[in-house]
Order: sequence, then C-alpha cells, then structure tokens
Amino acid sequence: MMKVGIIMGSKSDLPIMQDAIDILTDFGIDIEVDIVSAHRTPEKLFDYGTNAHKRGINVIIAGAGGAAHLPGMVASLSPLPIIGVPVKSSNSIDGWDSVLSILQMPGGVPVATVALNGAKNAGILAAQILGCSNQKIMDKIIAYKEDLKTKVIESAKSLNQN
Amino acid sequence: MMKVGIIMGSKSDLPIMQDAIDILTDFGIDIEVDIVSAHRTPEKLFDYGTNAHKRGINVIIAGAGGAAHLPGMVASLSPLPIIGVPVKSSNSIDGWDSVLSILQMPGGVPVATVALNGAKNAGILAAQILGCSNQKIMDKIIAYKEDLKTKVIESAKSLNQN
Amino acid sequence: MMKVGIIMGSKSDLPIMQDAIDILTDFGIDIEVDIVSAHRTPEKLFDYGTNAHKRGINVIIAGAGGAAHLPGMVASLSPLPIIGVPVKSSNSIDGWDSVLSILQMPGGVPVATVALNGAKNAGILAAQILGCSNQKIMDKIIAYKEDLKTKVIESAKSLNQN
Amino acid sequence: MMKVGIIMGSKSDLPIMQDAIDILTDFGIDIEVDIVSAHRTPEKLFDYGTNAHKRGINVIIAGAGGAAHLPGMVASLSPLPIIGVPVKSSNSIDGWDSVLSILQMPGGVPVATVALNGAKNAGILAAQILGCSNQKIMDKIIAYKEDLKTKVIESAKSLNQN
Amino acid sequence: MMKVGIIMGSKSDLPIMQDAIDILTDFGIDIEVDIVSAHRTPEKLFDYGTNAHKRGINVIIAGAGGAAHLPGMVASLSPLPIIGVPVKSSNSIDGWDSVLSILQMPGGVPVATVALNGAKNAGILAAQILGCSNQKIMDKIIAYKEDLKTKVIESAKSLNQN
Amino acid sequence: MMKVGIIMGSKSDLPIMQDAIDILTDFGIDIEVDIVSAHRTPEKLFDYGTNAHKRGINVIIAGAGGAAHLPGMVASLSPLPIIGVPVKSSNSIDGWDSVLSILQMPGGVPVATVALNGAKNAGILAAQILGCSNQKIMDKIIAYKEDLKTKVIESAKSLNQN
Amino acid sequence: MMKVGIIMGSKSDLPIMQDAIDILTDFGIDIEVDIVSAHRTPEKLFDYGTNAHKRGINVIIAGAGGAAHLPGMVASLSPLPIIGVPVKSSNSIDGWDSVLSILQMPGGVPVATVALNGAKNAGILAAQILGCSNQKIMDKIIAYKEDLKTKVIESAKSLNQN
Amino acid sequence: MMKVGIIMGSKSDLPIMQDAIDILTDFGIDIEVDIVSAHRTPEKLFDYGTNAHKRGINVIIAGAGGAAHLPGMVASLSPLPIIGVPVKSSNSIDGWDSVLSILQMPGGVPVATVALNGAKNAGILAAQILGCSNQKIMDKIIAYKEDLKTKVIESAKSLNQN
Repeated sequence: MMKVGIIMGSKSDLPIMQDAIDILTDFGIDIEVDIVSAHRTPEKLFDYGTNAHKRGINVIIAGAGGAAHLPGMVASLSPLPIIGVPVKSSNSIDGWDSVLSILQMPGGVPVATVALNGAKNAGILAAQILGCSNQKIMDKIIAYKEDLKTKVIESAKSLNQN
Repeated sequence: MMKVGIIMGSKSDLPIMQDAIDILTDFGIDIEVDIVSAHRTPEKLFDYGTNAHKRGINVIIAGAGGAAHLPGMVASLSPLPIIGVPVKSSNSIDGWDSVLSILQMPGGVPVATVALNGAKNAGILAAQILGCSNQKIMDKIIAYKEDLKTKVIESAKSLNQN
Repeated sequence: MMKVGIIMGSKSDLPIMQDAIDILTDFGIDIEVDIVSAHRTPEKLFDYGTNAHKRGINVIIAGAGGAAHLPGMVASLSPLPIIGVPVKSSNSIDGWDSVLSILQMPGGVPVATVALNGAKNAGILAAQILGCSNQKIMDKIIAYKEDLKTKVIESAKSLNQN
Repeated sequence: MMKVGIIMGSKSDLPIMQDAIDILTDFGIDIEVDIVSAHRTPEKLFDYGTNAHKRGINVIIAGAGGAAHLPGMVASLSPLPIIGVPVKSSNSIDGWDSVLSILQMPGGVPVATVALNGAKNAGILAAQILGCSNQKIMDKIIAYKEDLKTKVIESAKSLNQN
Repeated sequence: MMKVGIIMGSKSDLPIMQDAIDILTDFGIDIEVDIVSAHRTPEKLFDYGTNAHKRGINVIIAGAGGAAHLPGMVASLSPLPIIGVPVKSSNSIDGWDSVLSILQMPGGVPVATVALNGAKNAGILAAQILGCSNQKIMDKIIAYKEDLKTKVIESAKSLNQN
Repeated sequence: MMKVGIIMGSKSDLPIMQDAIDILTDFGIDIEVDIVSAHRTPEKLFDYGTNAHKRGINVIIAGAGGAAHLPGMVASLSPLPIIGVPVKSSNSIDGWDSVLSILQMPGGVPVATVALNGAKNAGILAAQILGCSNQKIMDKIIAYKEDLKTKVIESAKSLNQN
Repeated sequence: MMKVGIIMGSKSDLPIMQDAIDILTDFGIDIEVDIVSAHRTPEKLFDYGTNAHKRGINVIIAGAGGAAHLPGMVASLSPLPIIGVPVKSSNSIDGWDSVLSILQMPGGVPVATVALNGAKNAGILAAQILGCSNQKIMDKIIAYKEDLKTKVIESAKSLNQN
Repeated sequence: MMKVGIIMGSKSDLPIMQDAIDILTDFGIDIEVDIVSAHRTPEKLFDYGTNAHKRGINVIIAGAGGAAHLPGMVASLSPLPIIGVPVKSSNSIDGWDSVLSILQMPGGVPVATVALNGAKNAGILAAQILGCSNQKIMDKIIAYKEDLKTKVIESAKSLNQN
C-alpha cells in the first residue's frame, strides 16, 4: 500500500494544505498528516526526514511559508521525492520568500515545487508519482483530467447560452 | 524498463539540460532526448504530450526559457509527472519569466518545478520518482546522497588543513 | 464582415474580459466569445488556434492568469494577430506571473500584450487592427479618442469650478 | 501599398530595432525608419503621431528604453495600432522600467507590447496586422511559421544523430 | 509673485494630489490646479508644457499612475523644474510601474521624483525650490521642520507617560 | 552668486557623480564637491547638513549606493532642496536598494530623486532650480534643450542617409 | 544590569514594535523605549546614537519603515550591536523599501536585520546577545526554545485527534 | 576566551566569507571555521547547531546562497545569536533567494541578517556582540569606527586637492 506524508510548518498552514489532503482522499490514496516545524522542532524534522521512507511513506508533501526551510530540509534527509508547497503566510513578503526559499535548492537536493498556495497540485503531483507504478492511480488521474476538460466545456456552453 | 523523456524548447537549452542527461546516465536510467518547441512545433508538442505515457515514458523533464510554456503544456496533455526546468535564456528578464511561467500553474495541472537552470536536480528528482517503485534506483539515490556528504566532509577537512 | 474572437482560460476571467466584449460591442464589431483552457482543454485549444483564421476570425483576444499559456499557445497555432490580456487571478503573484508568461514570447511568435487586466485596451487594439483596412472602424476610433479628450477637458473644468 | 513606420527614441536603440527592419524587409513590406525622441524632440513626436495615418502609415512600431514614453505618446496621438518594443538600454534597471512604462497604459490608449528587446516579434506582429486584409502577407506569415517548425524538427534530428 | 502649477492625469488622482495642494496652501504659496492627461489630451499637455513658464509658473508638480508619462512629457516640453508624483492607481502593479516610468528619465530631461503617493513631499519640495530665492518661504520651511521635530518630541513624551 | 553643493558617500561614487560636476561646470554654475559619508562620518554629515544653507549653498546634490542614507539625512538636516542620486554601487542588489532608500522618504522630508546613476540629470535639475530666479541660467537651460533637439534631428538625418 | 534600548521612527510603529517590548519584558530584561526620528529629529538621533553606550544601553533595537534610515544611522553613531526591524508602514512599497534600506548597509557599519515586521525576533536576538555573557538569560532562551517545541508537538497532536 | 564560529554551506562560499575571517582576525578574536551544508550534511548541521554553545562558541556566523537554509537551521538548533550572510552564489536569482531565505525567519527563531555578500559586516557584528561584555573588544570597535572616519576625511581631502 502506497502512502503520502503531508507535513506543514504550522497549524496555520492547514487551510492551504487541506487542498492536498482533499484531493488525495478523493483519489483514495493513503495519507498521513503531521505538523513538523524545521525551526521549532528540529529533532522531529530530523527524525521524520530520516525515517519516512523506512516507515512506508513513498512521497512527502511539505508546506511552509516565509523563510520556508521545511521542504528543503526534508529533502536533505530523505531519499524520497519531496514536493514543496510555498504558503503565502501572514509574515511573507507577497509570497516571494516562500517561493524562493523552496524553489532555489542547490544541485544534488531537489524539491519539486508547485505554485504559491498550490497544495491541490501538490496532491495531484503526488498521485502522478505513485501512478508511475500503479495503473489504478494512473487511470484515476486520466479520469480526473477528463473531468477537468468536461467542466470547462460545460462552462463554455453556459457562457454562450447567456 | 523505466524511461525518462527529456525535452527542451530549443537546442540552445542543451548546455543547461545536459546536466539532467548526465546525472540520469550516471544513475543508469534509460532516457530519450528531444527538442519540442511549444511555440514553433505545436503539433509535435501535442503528439509528444498525448503519447509519451503510451510509448513507455514514465517521467518527463521539460526545460524552457522566457515565456516558457513547454512544461505546462506537456502537463496539460500527459498524465505523467512533469518536471519543469526554468532556463535563464538570453531573452529572459533575469530568469523571472522562466520561473513564473513554469511554476505558477493553475489548480489541476501541476508542474514539479526545480531551481533556475536546475537541470541536475530535475534528473535526480526523476530518479527519485522512479525510485518509489524500484529499490535499485532508490539505493543509488541513497548512495548518491552519501557521496554528497562525503565530499563536503572532505572539503571541510581540506579547509582546516590550510 | 470582420470578426474578433475573444477567449479566456476560465469563466472566472469573465468579469475582466467583459471590458473587451463591451468596447467591441460599442464599436459595432462582430465578436465570438468562448472559454478555451490551455491546460484543461488542450484539444479545444489546438482546434481553436488551428482553425480560427479559416472560420473568418481576424483578430484573437486571449485572456488568462497565473502561468498564462493561452495567448502564447494560440499565437503558436494561428497566423492571426493575437492580443494577450494578463489577468490578475486569485492564484497570481501580484500579477507578475500573468504579465511575464504572456509578454516574454520567444522570437518568431509574438503576442500583443496589454496592461494587467487591460481587456478594454485589448478591445480597442483589436478595433485599431481592423481599422487598418476599414475606414468606418478607423473613424469610430478617431471619434472615440476625441470623446476621451472631451471627458478630460470637462473633468478639468469641474475641478476648477469647485 | 501598406507601410509600417518604425521609430526609436535614440540611434543607440538601432541595434535592437534592426530586427524589426530585417524581418519586415524579408516579408517585402514597405517600411519607413526614423528617430523620434519623446523627451528631446516633443514637437517631432507630436507631428509624427498626429500625421502618420494621414501619410499612409498603417502600423507604427516604437522602441524605447528606461522611462520609455515614445510608444505610449504616439498611441495618444495616433488612431493607428502602435506596437511597443521595450529596449533594455544602458540606463535601464534590468529592463523593468522599459517594460512597465510601455505595457501599463491606461484604459483607452493601448500599446501592443512585445518582449524586452523583442523587435523581431514587433515586425512579425506588424505583418500579421497587415495580413488581416492582405492575403499575400498572410500567406507569407503562414510560410514563415512553417519554416520555424522545419528548423526545430531539423535541429531535433541533428541532436539525436550526435 | 511665484506660482506652482499642479497637474494630474485624471480626476481620480485628486485624493492623493490634494496633499500637495494643502501643504502649499498652508505655506501661502500661489497654486494653479488642472487636469492634463498625457494620453487623452496630448494637445493640452503640449500647450501646458510649452507655455507654463511663460504664464508665470515657476515649478510644476505632476502626478500620474500606471505607465505615467505626464511628468516626463512636461519635463520634455518645459524648462522649469518638474516634480513627479507616482500615484498608486487602481491599474498599477503595486506602484512599480508608476515609480519606474517617472523616475527612470533619460539623460538631459530630469524629473524630481518623490515617493509613491508622496504628494505632500512634492509640495514641500516645490516650496524649497521657491525658497532658494525667497527668504520668507525659506523661513516657513525652517519653521515647518521645527514643527515636525516638536511633534515627534511630544509624541515620545506621551509614549513614556503611558 | 548661487552655488550647488555636490556630495557623495564614497570616492568610489565619483565616476558616476562626475556627470553632475561636468554639466554644472558647462552651465557655468559654481559648485563645491565633497565626500560625506552618512555611515562613516556622521559628525561631518551633521555639520554639512546643518550649515550648508548658511554658507551660501542653494541646492545640494547627494549621491550614494546600497542602503543610501546620505540624501535623506541631509534632507533631514537642511531646509534646502536636496537632489538624490541612487548609485548602482558594487554592493547593491541591482540598484533597487539605492533607489528605494533614497526615493521612499516619509512625509515632511522630501528628496528629489533622479534615475539610477542619473547624476547628469541631477546637475540639470539643480540648474533648473536656480533658473527659477535667475534668467541667465534659465536661458542656458532653454538653449541646452534646443541643443538636445538638434542632435536628435541630425542623428535621424544620418540614419536615413545610410 | 544590562539594558536594551528600543527606538522607533514614529509612534505609528508602536503596534509592530510592541512585540519586542513584550518578549523582552517576558524575559525580565530591562528596556528603555523612545521615539527617535532620523528625518524629523536628527539632533535627538545624533545624541541617542552617540551616548547610548555611555548611558548603560548594551543593545539597540531600531524599527522604521519606508526609506528607513534610523537603524543605519544609529549604527553609524554607536559602537553597540544594532538590530534593525523593517516596518511595513502605510507609505511602503510592499515592505521592500523598508527591508532594503535597513539590510544593505555598507562595509564597516552592520545592522543586524530581522524579518519584515519581525520585532519579536528582534527582542529574542537582543536577549541572545545579552545571553552571551549572562547565563541566566541564556537559560531563559533555552527554556523559550523548549517551549516553542512543546507547543508545536501539542498542536500536531490536536491535529491528529480531529 | 570568547570564540566565533564561522560556517558556510560550501567551499565556494569561502572567497566571500574570508572577509569575516579577516576582520575578526584583525580584531584578535578567536575563530573556528568549518564547512557545514544544511542540504548535504544534515547530521553535521544537527551536531554543530546542538553543541556549538557547549563547546565554547559564543556567536555563529553562517553564510550560504540560493535557498539558503544553513543560518536558519543553526538558529533553530542553537540558543546562540546567529548571524546570516546571504551569499550571491552562481545559482542565485540576483541574490534575492539568498536574502529572503535567510531574512524572513518566523517568530521565535531570529537570524541577524547582514547585506548580500556582507561577510565583513558579519564579522564586525560578531565583535560588537562580544564587545557587550568585553571592554577590550568594545574599545577596538570604537577605534575601528574612528579609523573609518579618518579614511573618509583623507579621501575627501585628496578629492579637493585634485
């Protein structure tokens, strides 16, 4: 059974990160949610990053704002693919700090960064990663993309009926 | 056999994208390299994005600069995980255009974005994705990370011997 | 009869794009409005871009936000002049992503970009393009500019009467 | 006979603006090149903007750098479609000033802005505008786009032969 | 009798520009207020800039937002010192466009730029300019600065009494 | 006899500030040049700002880079009009720090800011300020502007002779 | 007895700066609060900066917004460690001016800059500085960090109980 | 005996960080230099941050570039004052990433950030911190500041002798 670990730097990131939880739940993918603060619980960060792949986690989604070190530090500690969600927190400079401190990782330690507040896409990306070796999940993604299409087509129809 | 597709918008992106080719070759992962321009060869883009997963590609790395639409358009067409490499091309405004036009994808269509010119990390991330279901690749990543560590430790030693 | 195609990436762009619809309606120019999402309906995008000029469309106005690929991809597919409207959508970083991913097109594939949320100007620009070969439209533009002038003059008068 | 007016704020903009001259010459479109400085020759600017459409000019391309007022002021004076080329001049702050002072025109007075230093695209866009009512030019644009495609395909082939 | 001309691109700039009117009125300096739009009333702009110094205006304060060309164009036409006020108008990208299109004037044509929305400082600066040759105004500025000081000292006292 | 004080934060700013010295010398205006560092010689700054207007200085031009406090601090101390030149020094972040720390002065204490490295315009602006009450200087400015015009006209002619 | 001086440019900075007052009060560290405006009370600034270390102040926290010169000017005058708090005041351009005009100090005159509106961290940093030579304060910091950790752990528990 | 720990993320940061080494050596302050990479040697980071204050280190200077997590992570682990030096490394976007990922720390975990590449100031700040409880070091700082002043005064003299 594949599992996605979703962590965030603070409970205040939850309203944003909920989108990742929801989409993965919709896809029927097993998740584990936790709060891990790079700056306030470094030992927990260390433990989480070192052991996640041993505990059966396959992909990690990490969301944080401001000088956001959580995704990069988990990427430092874990061999798993890490997806970073820059959160536009209240102490952020228009989100630029969150984006740049997650995206601009040095050579050797990638973080798969999604859009500012893009937790939904982080969830979809995690599903796509699992879908590489799981045809069921891949089929769900293909269906999801079809559904996106249908909604746009219908929205276009309603536009032209007005 | 798993395979990574590496595409770029122009041959002028090759010096940057070579880092992805090299690291995946080092990891012994099968790759396929091509030039696909979203703006000059839209039919090829359409064909590539629609069929890559049917042809046995598991992950796609797409690099482009300026108003970089290649990664996002492939993500639109393919159910596979797409890794985007913002290239600081000569027509770029300090790289900001490349970064933002790859990173800021709308909900539903993620692109796993790496750092500006971060093709090496794109390669490692592709390996990590494949490593989710391939223990051999996972072991190579763990070894690679150990190697990074050793080099820093040695570099620190040489510093203190001077 | 000349016609302007107005497309947008999502129905949520309509409040902004309405300004283009209104000004072209005021000018008495024939329009056709549709929703075409580069990322969610790539086949429709492909069809739209490839066929618009065959269906009698003369100019295309495309509005989108965030990593906005719609204007550039239509420009890739169509020989018509494409006007891009960067929309400051809710998932945008202060509009910079919308602006840069529309403006910074590579050599060979221009998009005529207007100001952030500048759909009204997109409509006027479309009219000016048609006015190149249609004296009636040109006369309307000249009258429109006179009207702008008159309103400022009157506004200045009211200022000095207070 | 249709004609494109190409103006620039200073002779130092010529190396960039030459790309517009070259592509329009390639397309066989009649051009007229001049230096008009919004800040140093305001009377000439006024005369140029007021009379261009009376002298048989159909589209104007205006290039300028820094606090670039030339495109917007010509747009203020002329009913023609105006294409603005932000030039990254030596006194520019990374090109941002050129881009923003051309792009962000107020409602009522559009400038069709192309990429920083994007004079080639300005030329192509002018041709596309003329192509709206001139099938010969339209055919040349279609051929030009085919040619772009062919070059990418060949470049891709050469990549895979190495 | 010395006089300051205060112009703005639109009546919507008045709430900001009122600060310049108020402070100059406080200083007892003669002012003349008008709306002059670079983009909608270019003839009025031309007339204003060419004749202001002949009509007895000594300093001009010009406020505008977005691609703000009014201050620079008046500076182009007039030999007087021009003070530019970047206005953060509704169509502005966080004020950057207003600031850069006023500040970054080319060599030969200065605009004395003040802070974003800094109309009050524009008024004080105009007074300081007139104060160069008018001891009465200079004395008022010295008194004004003393008053600023007193208010801070009192504010500090009230802080420590709490 | 009117006099302009030109100060800069470091001798390394001289190559940029020389443009102000040269243009004022061309205009035949008396100048006094000094190095005053806000951060390294605060007592000299204090003395300079407090006494300049008593010593017969009429306008002050202050150039500095990075966190540039010299223009604003002189403006704090002196009732004279202060012109600030943001210098793009080697320790600057693309000039943004220099520009913003000079431009964004609080209400009550204006600095007349010119373009990045715009020392020439600072000199012209100083002359314009003196010209408010000195017809000879005003005539020189009018002649200077005529000369700018002539050079552009000639440059345009040479362009069309090629 | 060690003491921290807390100064701010205006009483309007107090809501932000209160966080520094509160945390230092919590740590039981002696503080002295004052309003010192670099631009409106330069003599007070000069006196404060020159004498603080003679009056028994050990560390200074200075908060200011916009073109924020207070922290840098105090650093110019005092040999003490100066902590700068960039305040996002109403006249600020998204806080960038405050940040850059405090952070980018020239070589020789450091300001220890904290995050935008980061007065709480300024207080903690002041405590850490005093803790270098005061074991009691150091122990309080260690306890404070433990407390941060505990709160995150509890917050994580509550998350998983929902 | 007080000691400053200087760490950097990579040996390639040494040319910048050398300035901190040099100035502290000039001040006669004991230092210890090491390479600690947050992303490549997380265990060493953990060990360093946890134990530095137990080993007799009083202040830590940490330099890093790009998504720079070293200063913030050490601040997370250590109760000591941490000084962060944003390094403009080759993979940096004009230094913005380095600056923002060090400066914008969340409440509770300060990093005393200096200017981009400002390692010299980091060294001086470390000395100032130690000077809080060590009169000898304080005297050296006072002398250092006198020396800065003398150099500017002499530089000003040489300017006026030319």
